[in-house]
This record gives sequence, structure tokens and C-alpha cells, in this order.
Amino acid sequence: MEKPYLLFLGDAADQLAAKTATGIADWRPEWCVGQMRLPGCQADTGLADVSIAEAASRGARTLVIGVVNSGGVMPASWSDSIAEALAAGLDVASGLHSRLESFPAIRQAAERHDRKLFDLRHGERTFGTAKGIRRSGKRLLTVGTDCSCGKKYTALAIERAMRERGMAADFRATGQTGLFIAERGVAIDAVVADFISGAAEWLSPDNAADHWDVIEGQGSLFHAAFAGVSLGLLHGSQPDALVLCHEPTRRHMRGLPEAPIPDLDDCIRQNLTHARLTNPDCRMLGVSINTAALSPTEADAYLAETEARLGLPCLDPMTGDPGRFLDQLA
Amino acid sequence: MEKPYLLFLGDAADQLAAKTATGIADWRPEWCVGQMRLPGCQADTGLADVSIAEAASRGARTLVIGVVNSGGVMPASWSDSIAEALAAGLDVASGLHSRLESFPAIRQAAERHDRKLFDLRHGERTFGTAKGIRRSGKRLLTVGTDCSCGKKYTALAIERAMRERGMAADFRATGQTGLFIAERGVAIDAVVADFISGAAEWLSPDNAADHWDVIEGQGSLFHAAFAGVSLGLLHGSQPDALVLCHEPTRRHMRGLPEAPIPDLDDCIRQNLTHARLTNPDCRMLGVSINTAALSPTEADAYLAETEARLGLPCLDPMTGDPGRFLDQLA
Repeated sequence: MEKPYLLFLGDAADQLAAKTATGIADWRPEWCVGQMRLPGCQADTGLADVSIAEAASRGARTLVIGVVNSGGVMPASWSDSIAEALAAGLDVASGLHSRLESFPAIRQAAERHDRKLFDLRHGERTFGTAKGIRRSGKRLLTVGTDCSCGKKYTALAIERAMRERGMAADFRATGQTGLFIAERGVAIDAVVADFISGAAEWLSPDNAADHWDVIEGQGSLFHAAFAGVSLGLLHGSQPDALVLCHEPTRRHMRGLPEAPIPDLDDCIRQNLTHARLTNPDCRMLGVSINTAALSPTEADAYLAETEARLGLPCLDPMTGDPGRFLDQLA
Repeated sequence: MEKPYLLFLGDAADQLAAKTATGIADWRPEWCVGQMRLPGCQADTGLADVSIAEAASRGARTLVIGVVNSGGVMPASWSDSIAEALAAGLDVASGLHSRLESFPAIRQAAERHDRKLFDLRHGERTFGTAKGIRRSGKRLLTVGTDCSCGKKYTALAIERAMRERGMAADFRATGQTGLFIAERGVAIDAVVADFISGAAEWLSPDNAADHWDVIEGQGSLFHAAFAGVSLGLLHGSQPDALVLCHEPTRRHMRGLPEAPIPDLDDCIRQNLTHARLTNPDCRMLGVSINTAALSPTEADAYLAETEARLGLPCLDPMTGDPGRFLDQLA
């Protein structure tokens, strides 16, 4: 995929719906010429709003679909924008479940203008079933009380903190946004179910004894739709260390209005129990709190109370020091 | 798929490797004209050994690949037999991960002889993510300490026992062998990982209040390769009742020589904990023991000791009365 990118936010209904765009803008702003939004868009990456023509004139090479579409249906307004980008000479990249080429208008526009379509979620790679054999090197996995609560940002912040301490560390992407940021990895939720753990084993292979893979978690053991992916990733990762991620203002599990958010204690216990099936020495290093929706005073109080109650470091890695998680490794 | 079938066992290395053939022969013998084995085959369904020519003369319409191939590679000896069956006028059906048409010799033979290839594991159906909303009707799911320990046979025996009691009950297949037996269902391990629970919800939809779906379990929460599938199926099934299946002579988890078999207690507790995320009233009805590898005396002693220790009915549904599980529902 050629850089720089124009991030397409479409008519995203809320900030979370545009989390791919937001993730790229936050972690790789130097790769982006701006964002493009349609009327009604409720999300904002903070980058400059530019049209496709402006983006092309600034050198943009690829339009990145940075928003999820519900149920795999491509709205006509998106399709028109994508076709316009192809006509303007940009390639188009997507992390949606639906392949870009499955939409006739997009496929035809790409052929007409001789541009490339990238579907990051659909690799050509196939995987074997997991072997369950311990691998050399160290692994840290972020796990969550829910979907979309900070597992990727926490993993990226921990990779950065490890490198600042001179540790050998690599972020390992497991979702579409992570794949855009790391430019490698596997969309673990798009793998055939029999091979979830096998794909996780492939993602973090044998390595030097002091090397850390920092693996992006997915979903939650407590999410009725996605826990299978979470458990397969947990087993295949064989983590030496976990960090639990939590968004404290969430009132129910994402997409499931009847489902309560699990207790942090329960979440820690369940994740450790399952992790120890493949790595009996696995430990919980702390809790990463996404405090974006709290005032600074509320955030401080929440972090202090939670840390005192759990007896583990609790911090927001975007405002606090994720190195405190690493102190637990000493 | 047209009946009757010729069951192909290939050069199966052991009885478990031919579990699709064995399952069809045990539960639908009236659909089979016999079995076909290659030199070195270590499995036996008990059906008559017949050649392809003999099977064709007895009216066989479909050759069923009843054995798993390791790693998706089709041995040349299998490919030759399959091509011979196509030339003799039979269709060919398979539940392997690899599609029959992906093997050029097989695809070409099917085209040449105008025969059909069926890949049961690969439905054309796509699924949504799980909704987590409670459905009407009742559901029983078989779960296991390991893979290949009796979950399908237990579910089929319970469906039969329910019907003998005049209860409305349907076996719901989740694996290739179950699909051959039930002629419907979903190969849950072949679904894209994001949709495991969604597919399980589709499999056992709303039904009459007193109707039971008896759902075939897959894998084990304690199997490092397949637990993700097991958990997604458990959540999506929203079971009112579980039956735990166990093979008491197993010394390690299937395919993982280093991994011990979990305690029955642990297995009961973990399965109930996770099941209650989507059905808080879920109960464990008892333990189904596959005693095929024990002498009758050993079997009796094992069942009595386990039943006394766990305080739940423990029986082999192929030799004992699975109705004892149903007594727990009263």
C-alpha cells in the first residue's frame, strides 16, 4: 500500500465507528494528508478536512476506509466517494469484512482507472491448528472487559514504553486498524474458527529470550458475540503477561444493550485461568483505563480507587506512564 | 446428496481418524451399502467391505469421504479411488477442510463424468454476529473434556431418548459427521471466527416453549487449539442444560501430547460459568462417559465412582439409559 493516505470517515455515527481512521491518525499521523467526511459524520480524527481532489493534489496515494459499515452493506454515498477517489488516481484500502471487489461499482471503477483495491482483513495466508508447544521469547497480551475499550492503544503504548527502556519489543496486530498501523499481522476475527489459536501462534513465533511481542487483544471473554475469538487468541498467544483494558463509562457490552459490563475482578480471574492453560506462569501486570470520557478529577479518583481496590497499577496509558506496568516485571 | 452411500475409509491410521464414516454407519446404517478401505487402514465401521464396482452395482449414488486427511493434503491413493468412483457414476461428498474441487485430478474427473462434488463443511450461507437475545424454546448442549470424546453420540442418544418420551426434540449438527447424519446444520469450526456465536444462534432459532434443540458440542474449553470454537458455541447456544462428555482412558488432550486432561469438576464449573453469561439458569444434567475402551467391570466401577463423587448421573449413553439425564429436568 502506498502512502500517504486520505482517511475516509463516511457518515460515521459516532467516534467508535471510525476507530480505524482514529487509530491511524493517532499513531501514524505522518502517513496522512487529511480526513474526508460525508454529511452527518459524527466522528473526527483531528486531521484537516480535505476533498478527494485536494488530497490528490497533496500527493495522497491511497484512500483508507476508516469507518465500519453495519452488516457489510455499502451505502451508495460511500460507493460514490470511493469511485471518485479511484478516478482521481488513488488506490483504496479497507479493513471491512466485505471485500471491496464484492461491490460491483467499486470493482468496475478500479478496473476502469487501473487502481488497486486492498482488503486487509482478507489475507491469502492459511493457518494450521494450534500446536500448544511453548515458544521462546516473551509475550504480553492486552485483554478487555468489552470490545473497543483500549486494547490496541494500550498495546501500542506498552511497545513504545518498552522501546524507551531499551527492551526489544514488537507490536503484533490482530485487527484491521492494527494492521494499518503495523503494516503486518493477522485479522484474527476473519480467520476460519478452527484456526484462531493457530493463527495466534503464527503471529508471535519463537524469538530471542528477552524479546517481547506485545499482542493486540480482541473482544472480551465476557462478550456474547466475540468471546470465542478472545479465548482462541489468549490460548495461542501463550502470554507471560496480561494487561486488562477497561472503559469505565460503558453501561453495557458494546452492541448488546441487555448485557452488563463484567467486574474487573472476575475479568482478571477468568483471563488468568484460561491463559494458564498454555502458560502456567502468566501474570496480570495491571489495568489500563480509558479515561477519555472522564474529567481529569474524575479520572484521578477512579484510577486511585481502582488501584487501591485491586492492588495492581491502574493508569491511562495515553495520559499516564505505562512503564508502571513494566515495573511489575522486575 | 443422493443415497445410498459408499463410505470411504482410505488408509485411516486409527478408528478416530474415520469418525465420519463410523458416525454415519452407527446412526444411519440404512443409508449405506458398505465401506471401502485401502491397504493399511486401521479403522472399521462394521459394514461390508465392497469395491467401487460392487457398490455401484448395489445402487450406491454417493461416495462419502469418511476419514480426515492430515493438513489438507490429499494422498494420491485417495485421489485415485475418488476418480474411480466418479468414473463409476457416483457423486462424491466430503467434510474435509480442503474442498474437493481444489484437487485438480478430482475436479477434472467430476467434469469428465458429469458428477457432483459436495463439500459439507463449506456452506454458502453467511452469518451475522451474535445478538445475545434470549430465544424461546429449550436447548441442551453437549460439552467435553476433550475433542472426539462422545459429544455427537451423546447428543444423538439424548435426542432419541427425548423422542421416546414424547418430547419434541431435534439434533442440531455442528460438525461434518453430524451434518451427514442430520442432513442440515452448520460446520461451526469452518465459520469465520467473528461469527461463531452468530452461527450458533442461527442453528437453534426461536421455537415452541417445550421444544428441545439438542446441540452437538465441539472441542473443549480446555483444548489449546479449539477452545475458541467451544466458547463461541456455548455462548450462542444459550443452553438451558449441559451434559459433559468424557473418555476416561485418554492420557492427554488429542493432538497435544503435553496437555493433561482437565478434571471433571473444573470442566463442569468452567462450562457452567461461561454458559450463564447468556443463560443464567443453565444446569449440568450429568456426565456422559465413553466406556468403549473399558471392560464391562471397569466401566461399571468407573461410572459408580464418578457418579458418587460428582453427585450427578454418570452413564454411557450407548450402553446405559440417557433418560437418566432427562430425569434431572423434572
